[in-house]
Amino acid sequence: MPKIVVDVMPKAELLDPQGKAVAGALGRLGQSAFTDVRVGKRFELTVDGPVDETVLASVREIADELLSNQVIEDVVNITVVDEAGAHSASGASGALA
Amino acid sequence: MPKIVVDVMPKAELLDPQGKAVAGALGRLGQSAFTDVRVGKRFELTVDGPVDETVLASVREIADELLSNQVIEDVVNITVVDEAGAHSASGASGALA
Repeated sequence: MPKIVVDVMPKAELLDPQGKAVAGALGRLGQSAFTDVRVGKRFELTVDGPVDETVLASVREIADELLSNQVIEDVVNITVVDEAGAHSASGASGALA
Repeated sequence: MPKIVVDVMPKAELLDPQGKAVAGALGRLGQSAFTDVRVGKRFELTVDGPVDETVLASVREIADELLSNQVIEDVVNITVVDEAGAHSASGASGALA
C-alpha cells in the first residue's frame, strides 16, 4: 500500500533545544563538521487505496491542522512513497503548506 | 551550507503508541483513507564545508549510535540536501544503516 510521508520541522526562527543538545553532544564526541542540528518529526501515513488528488488534499489539511503546530512548526515536505519505496512526488513547504 | 537529513522510524515490529493515537484521531475526524500512521524523527545536520565520503561515514556512525536507538528504531534514510533544497543522494536502510 502506498505511504505518504509528512515532514514537520521547528520553525527556523525558533530555538530547538533538542537539536542544540544533539549538536552539543556531537561537539563533545569530537564531531566538528556540523554547525547546527535541528530535530523534527516524520509521519508515515499508510493509504488504503490509490493516492489521488483528494487524498493529497486531505493529507495537506491533516499535516497543517493535526500533525503540526503552525505556531512553532512548518510542514517542510509531503512525499508519496509507493510500496517499492520509490518516491513519486515531493514538494517544499511553499508549494504544499 | 549543505544539510544532511537523517530519518529515524520505530521498527516495524514494534507498537508505536504515538502513531496509534494519530491514527485514532484521524478516524474520529472522519478521515478513513488511512490504515496506519507511524511517527518517527527527522534530523537535519548542517555541514560546515563540502559533503564528502568522510562526512557521510561520520553521519552514518552518528545516525546509528547517537540519533537512533538501534533496539527500537531504524535509520530509514540518509539524504544530502544542498543549499537550494535539491536532493542529491538518498538511500534506504539496508544500504546505509
